[in-house]
Amino acid sequence: MKIKILQKKVLVIQGPNTNMLGELETSIYGKETYESINKQIIDKAESFNFECDIFHSNVEGEIVNRLQQAKGEYNGIIINAGGYSHYSVAIRDAISSTKIPTVEIHMSNIYSREEFRQKSILAPVCAGQVVGFGKNSYFMALYGLSEMI
Amino acid sequence: MKIKILQKKVLVIQGPNTNMLGELETSIYGKETYESINKQIIDKAESFNFECDIFHSNVEGEIVNRLQQAKGEYNGIIINAGGYSHYSVAIRDAISSTKIPTVEIHMSNIYSREEFRQKSILAPVCAGQVVGFGKNSYFMALYGLSEMI
Amino acid sequence: MKIKILQKKVLVIQGPNTNMLGELETSIYGKETYESINKQIIDKAESFNFECDIFHSNVEGEIVNRLQQAKGEYNGIIINAGGYSHYSVAIRDAISSTKIPTVEIHMSNIYSREEFRQKSILAPVCAGQVVGFGKNSYFMALYGLSEMI
Amino acid sequence: MKIKILQKKVLVIQGPNTNMLGELETSIYGKETYESINKQIIDKAESFNFECDIFHSNVEGEIVNRLQQAKGEYNGIIINAGGYSHYSVAIRDAISSTKIPTVEIHMSNIYSREEFRQKSILAPVCAGQVVGFGKNSYFMALYGLSEMI
Amino acid sequence: MKIKILQKKVLVIQGPNTNMLGELETSIYGKETYESINKQIIDKAESFNFECDIFHSNVEGEIVNRLQQAKGEYNGIIINAGGYSHYSVAIRDAISSTKIPTVEIHMSNIYSREEFRQKSILAPVCAGQVVGFGKNSYFMALYGLSEMI
Amino acid sequence: MKIKILQKKVLVIQGPNTNMLGELETSIYGKETYESINKQIIDKAESFNFECDIFHSNVEGEIVNRLQQAKGEYNGIIINAGGYSHYSVAIRDAISSTKIPTVEIHMSNIYSREEFRQKSILAPVCAGQVVGFGKNSYFMALYGLSEMI
Amino acid sequence: MKIKILQKKVLVIQGPNTNMLGELETSIYGKETYESINKQIIDKAESFNFECDIFHSNVEGEIVNRLQQAKGEYNGIIINAGGYSHYSVAIRDAISSTKIPTVEIHMSNIYSREEFRQKSILAPVCAGQVVGFGKNSYFMALYGLSEMI
Amino acid sequence: MKIKILQKKVLVIQGPNTNMLGELETSIYGKETYESINKQIIDKAESFNFECDIFHSNVEGEIVNRLQQAKGEYNGIIINAGGYSHYSVAIRDAISSTKIPTVEIHMSNIYSREEFRQKSILAPVCAGQVVGFGKNSYFMALYGLSEMI
Amino acid sequence: MKIKILQKKVLVIQGPNTNMLGELETSIYGKETYESINKQIIDKAESFNFECDIFHSNVEGEIVNRLQQAKGEYNGIIINAGGYSHYSVAIRDAISSTKIPTVEIHMSNIYSREEFRQKSILAPVCAGQVVGFGKNSYFMALYGLSEMI
Amino acid sequence: MKIKILQKKVLVIQGPNTNMLGELETSIYGKETYESINKQIIDKAESFNFECDIFHSNVEGEIVNRLQQAKGEYNGIIINAGGYSHYSVAIRDAISSTKIPTVEIHMSNIYSREEFRQKSILAPVCAGQVVGFGKNSYFMALYGLSEMI
Amino acid sequence: MKIKILQKKVLVIQGPNTNMLGELETSIYGKETYESINKQIIDKAESFNFECDIFHSNVEGEIVNRLQQAKGEYNGIIINAGGYSHYSVAIRDAISSTKIPTVEIHMSNIYSREEFRQKSILAPVCAGQVVGFGKNSYFMALYGLSEMI
Amino acid sequence: MKIKILQKKVLVIQGPNTNMLGELETSIYGKETYESINKQIIDKAESFNFECDIFHSNVEGEIVNRLQQAKGEYNGIIINAGGYSHYSVAIRDAISSTKIPTVEIHMSNIYSREEFRQKSILAPVCAGQVVGFGKNSYFMALYGLSEMI
Repeated sequence: MKIKILQKKVLVIQGPNTNMLGELETSIYGKETYESINKQIIDKAESFNFECDIFHSNVEGEIVNRLQQAKGEYNGIIINAGGYSHYSVAIRDAISSTKIPTVEIHMSNIYSREEFRQKSILAPVCAGQVVGFGKNSYFMALYGLSEMI
Repeated sequence: MKIKILQKKVLVIQGPNTNMLGELETSIYGKETYESINKQIIDKAESFNFECDIFHSNVEGEIVNRLQQAKGEYNGIIINAGGYSHYSVAIRDAISSTKIPTVEIHMSNIYSREEFRQKSILAPVCAGQVVGFGKNSYFMALYGLSEMI
Repeated sequence: MKIKILQKKVLVIQGPNTNMLGELETSIYGKETYESINKQIIDKAESFNFECDIFHSNVEGEIVNRLQQAKGEYNGIIINAGGYSHYSVAIRDAISSTKIPTVEIHMSNIYSREEFRQKSILAPVCAGQVVGFGKNSYFMALYGLSEMI
Repeated sequence: MKIKILQKKVLVIQGPNTNMLGELETSIYGKETYESINKQIIDKAESFNFECDIFHSNVEGEIVNRLQQAKGEYNGIIINAGGYSHYSVAIRDAISSTKIPTVEIHMSNIYSREEFRQKSILAPVCAGQVVGFGKNSYFMALYGLSEMI
Repeated sequence: MKIKILQKKVLVIQGPNTNMLGELETSIYGKETYESINKQIIDKAESFNFECDIFHSNVEGEIVNRLQQAKGEYNGIIINAGGYSHYSVAIRDAISSTKIPTVEIHMSNIYSREEFRQKSILAPVCAGQVVGFGKNSYFMALYGLSEMI
Repeated sequence: MKIKILQKKVLVIQGPNTNMLGELETSIYGKETYESINKQIIDKAESFNFECDIFHSNVEGEIVNRLQQAKGEYNGIIINAGGYSHYSVAIRDAISSTKIPTVEIHMSNIYSREEFRQKSILAPVCAGQVVGFGKNSYFMALYGLSEMI
Repeated sequence: MKIKILQKKVLVIQGPNTNMLGELETSIYGKETYESINKQIIDKAESFNFECDIFHSNVEGEIVNRLQQAKGEYNGIIINAGGYSHYSVAIRDAISSTKIPTVEIHMSNIYSREEFRQKSILAPVCAGQVVGFGKNSYFMALYGLSEMI
Repeated sequence: MKIKILQKKVLVIQGPNTNMLGELETSIYGKETYESINKQIIDKAESFNFECDIFHSNVEGEIVNRLQQAKGEYNGIIINAGGYSHYSVAIRDAISSTKIPTVEIHMSNIYSREEFRQKSILAPVCAGQVVGFGKNSYFMALYGLSEMI
Repeated sequence: MKIKILQKKVLVIQGPNTNMLGELETSIYGKETYESINKQIIDKAESFNFECDIFHSNVEGEIVNRLQQAKGEYNGIIINAGGYSHYSVAIRDAISSTKIPTVEIHMSNIYSREEFRQKSILAPVCAGQVVGFGKNSYFMALYGLSEMI
Repeated sequence: MKIKILQKKVLVIQGPNTNMLGELETSIYGKETYESINKQIIDKAESFNFECDIFHSNVEGEIVNRLQQAKGEYNGIIINAGGYSHYSVAIRDAISSTKIPTVEIHMSNIYSREEFRQKSILAPVCAGQVVGFGKNSYFMALYGLSEMI
Repeated sequence: MKIKILQKKVLVIQGPNTNMLGELETSIYGKETYESINKQIIDKAESFNFECDIFHSNVEGEIVNRLQQAKGEYNGIIINAGGYSHYSVAIRDAISSTKIPTVEIHMSNIYSREEFRQKSILAPVCAGQVVGFGKNSYFMALYGLSEMI
Repeated sequence: MKIKILQKKVLVIQGPNTNMLGELETSIYGKETYESINKQIIDKAESFNFECDIFHSNVEGEIVNRLQQAKGEYNGIIINAGGYSHYSVAIRDAISSTKIPTVEIHMSNIYSREEFRQKSILAPVCAGQVVGFGKNSYFMALYGLSEMI
């Protein structure tokens, strides 16, 4: 008899350029690779008793598509929308329509970077936001969801 | 002998998240489904003697693609560009290059919503704009085109 | 036996300088005269089974007066508030107090004109807005009201 | 022998849409009618030993006219300029030219409403401003004038 | 035989609060009365061989009315629109529709006064603007028109 | 037997620099001393049948402390927050959490002073605001509270 | 023999009005009391093997004092600076001078509240920020620190 | 015997690029040459009984030099500061230090041109401003000075 | 023996709507077709001894994909990002992560067009920018790269 | 016999975080300690024949208190208000009410730091400002006062 | 027989501080001297078959003078207006009046520097702009002119 | 034997309109003449053991020239750039290229004057700034330099 059925599901959305982690802007994002971080996200998720899917796309509309499909399938969403965080009304509307508790995360502290990065258009429709902790931002979001849902 | 040849053609572009109509934000957009509304658009179009194609995409660039292909094929365009209305210079440029009379519509009254929704970057290159009438915004646009073209 | 009793009533308010239509700024508004357009509005209204009154004034406060008197007498209002659209809080408050579904219209596409014309202070309290279709803006508003009320 | 000669005179100016009190926006302004409030203003004025005239107009220029005629006739003015408070330089100039102590009042707390209502162009040329106390705003202004003049 | 037929006609529009000249804000506008200045305007106009009508109103919409009637009757217009200069799109549209060369004047130097007085919404549609010369602003405008028309 | 039990209680908070009244900026605030004005506030309060406590501090956080302690003890609050009015979110939050009707007052007309004084961050969470009447601003607030509570 | 010596120390700073939790704005902050939440913070801290001190003050300068004293004594700081988050350069400078990794937290989602709450002046000098998770914001910050230090 | 001694003296300052009149931007400034206009200025000045000097420079500091030397030598100044009108605090300070009545003129209507031309930094320290009348702007300024000094 | 090995490689990215060149907005972009211009780019590239690939997409995310793949493969990039230039943080981040010298080009002079086109969000992370030279903008960029790399 | 009686008195106010000098932000403020600098201030003051008191507080309101007490006791004030310089209207009002010549100083050049540090709300009510000279800013202020008072 | 007659002429204007190249800000502009770069410009110009004059001045008005004299003498202009690029309306007007195709260049990438350097007031009246390529910016401009004229 | 060799050299740059000191705006700048102040500057400089040259020009570019020549010749610069302080990027760049410690001074308190005078574009590249002490501003700058260099 499986008790798997009780596990909650979390969708992690990796936005544009997150897939280059470890290869680029290492002074900002560190040297750990995208694959390594994803693996740790899945491990941590398990430790919080979550089943966890990771979805990456550089295409704004595909992120919208994925969010729309999430409805009814996931108990929580974690999104690192990268550059789209600052202007994508389309992603905002998609998040707000899923009705699933969503956590916006950023690895870097967006509030100590360029002016245009200091405003997230997604934040107002998310449950909360975690910024500045590197890969730990993902883990903290998982932890937060584990307390909330 | 067909008189079909005389029928004008209209392209209706359904932007991001319009496909979730009836499922989401029902307090704003009502409970009628996307399919139901599309069907009514086609019926109304016929009553105005238009042949009508409906195209949906959540991807900004695919909307640009579709607009480019519209050239020479349609007599009028109706576009509900959803969230892209507020920042997509790419869609604006595509509309402005088709040289086809285009009507921007919104189901909700964008002028009584968030600040960032109160400015459409598409409006200046459209023939006109209809906002706030729910599904009737589409029908009014069809009626407007029927008088214009 | 009169069936007149079933007819809905619509008030069309013509704001400042609309009475000069056909005489001025013909490159923007066309050459059809104010009288001719008003006549067509009444005809169209009839075709939508509306009884229709048209009121014109160049005086902001008289438009407020007329809106106040409309209460309980009309089922819908169409207003072309001309220049007042951009600053008249007084007219806005009057519209919002009538509780009658009101459609703001503009013949020209205000969103492709001077900066100060691109913001309507009336729009947020109207049911909807139709701009850019010349005289057809009035007809589309009538059509919209015929679907709504 | 009349001691009436000693009574000071106050002019209360009721601006646009104030005459609809009790009929409209009752969630903001309460259900008491315009007539009832005016009557109470006159009673309160008497209790402060003021002779009190009330003038209403929806027309900006008529309010200017009335202010110009007030000169030398009244010892104090109370003005609820409604929507004109936020843009009427004409009324501002008229107030400032009467040289009569003038109190601007608002029944609602304009500072917790729309952005555009949070700036009064009249306030800088008035003696003072009272906002947010419903009909009591008028009475407090009368009381203030009774202490000042 | 009259040569009167050759005389050009000029309309001088006196906006809100101009009629209080000499009574109010004398530190800004001087002590000469409105009547006295009007008389000098007519005398100067004659000296430039103009027939000259003066129209005063405190009501924005009546100024719009007067401008509309000016069409075809006058060769030039001089307007001191007082406070309306800074927000009346309605008067702007009326000026721009007369197609008559119009000069905006102000007696005081509006550019050394409050911020909101430093922007005229009428200036862009006038032929020119004269500010800061007291009553001479009118005479200079007459002189300017005498050279232009 | 005491009827004192029926008396309502009002807390008057005197913010930074109010304690220097009569000593400083006498051209703005008049020559009456802080002590004299406080005495009159208490007298007036009694005439409105209020028991009245006055609290002064120059320290933002102490004003927050006092507001927190007011809960359940007072029926109304009058606050002259001086310079803190323009930026203290901490005081704003404290006011808004007391749930006690609070009146913001200013002795001077803040709307005719420096730009930064023309915006109160407290006003939106207060019941109302009285500005510009010198010491009478306190009395008018007392009168207003006497009508409201 | 004590192994206590290995425990890391965390300082939690509770800013203005946090001490009213459970009593005020319960629709925003929930009904749990300040004492209850503090207790849970200490328990969670222990579970992450932290020794944890909690300091509360409504006074900006006392928070500065406490931060200055933290130097060399704590391994991490969690701060809920309440209203001071939006303007206190003094607290910002104190944080930035401690050189201790500091996490700014907010229980509510400040990005979906008033405009002035959407900008934290502290964020740029903190290691990171956690907002919107109610009391979990504290726990997530503890978790984050446990991964970081 | 000369009565020249009674003649008032006027200095006309021609700013940058005015010397290209008739050669450039003829659609804006007309085809009359700089020399021709200067000659007419001198003639007109004489007809107003002024002795008139004209000074041209493209160099901001030389205009400052010339203004400084004007002190005590001229009764009035007319300045067409061209592009410097919009940013030269140096010229503004020089004008304001001469204490000589100065008229700012522009041939074109700067208020219907680019945004940056719609603000003159010189206007607040000039007696008045004349804009939009082509070469007549100079003559009107002469006329204005003849009435003023 | 091949000397091809010495050739440097350049990637030219053609953004949204560039593929319509010659068909649309010919008054701005000229009548030469997209294919013709691409051919010339390749020819010029060869003349500068570059191997040159051209990539077109209307989809923002596909441009991000292409940029990510460029890493280590190209020595220089030329990008005409069309409308995306003004808001695509995603493309900006991708450029900045490639570490390949990138030149932003525009055929039209974006600084003499609409306000929103006058700010490129890509420029700060590019090596340089060339605007306004029609098809020559591409050639100049190639020439610049030939000097730089 | 003491000549001490002739000595002028100066109050030096050390605002928030100044007490950490030498310990923090040493790259900006240098390594000299707070105590050392204070000692030099007193020595320099003596060399200018001033008696000098130094007051430090991190609490805004205590600085206000100290300023109020300075009245009649000191001939000059030097204030380094640290972070409070940028928003404390309370301190501004206290300075302006002392009527004692006050010099605002900053050790760092605030004009080459963050945007929010480039505006001092205290400067307009101070006699003057000295910024950017490290500890010499204090000495220069002392020297300035020695020339002024 | 000279074929020199066929050579086109280009004027290169070196604005303020360009003459210090190689001596100052070498981290931004490189170590090559002004003389060396000028020499290369002339060589490159020759290779594009241009006769080339270089003019340097630190004086805004002298640059205006030189531009005015260029009319009819040169076929193209390249201008590095240094600091004047950001505010000199005088130079802008001079460029726009020459009617000669003008290329604005900057050696550094002005779009990644201070805010005030990111707006060129000259760009809208130039044919195009080249920024960020060091000395190559000049050469690319020459190349661009060689294709254009 | 000369010890002159040990003396440091300071250049004092007097910007536009400073040469009119004592003649103009005496209510702001006092009645002492330019010559008198210059003499005192030289005397004070000597007392600080500086050799001191004073240079005046009203021409922006000449100030740039003088700054460029200062390189290697002076140990410190004091600049009163008058009106140029607020917009001259050219002077800013020249200061920043000299690499000589430069002190910006103003005699008046620019922070209590017009808005546009409250921003110095030179301050960020100067070592420090002294404002508001009349002629003492120069002396304090000398004193500051004597401590610094």
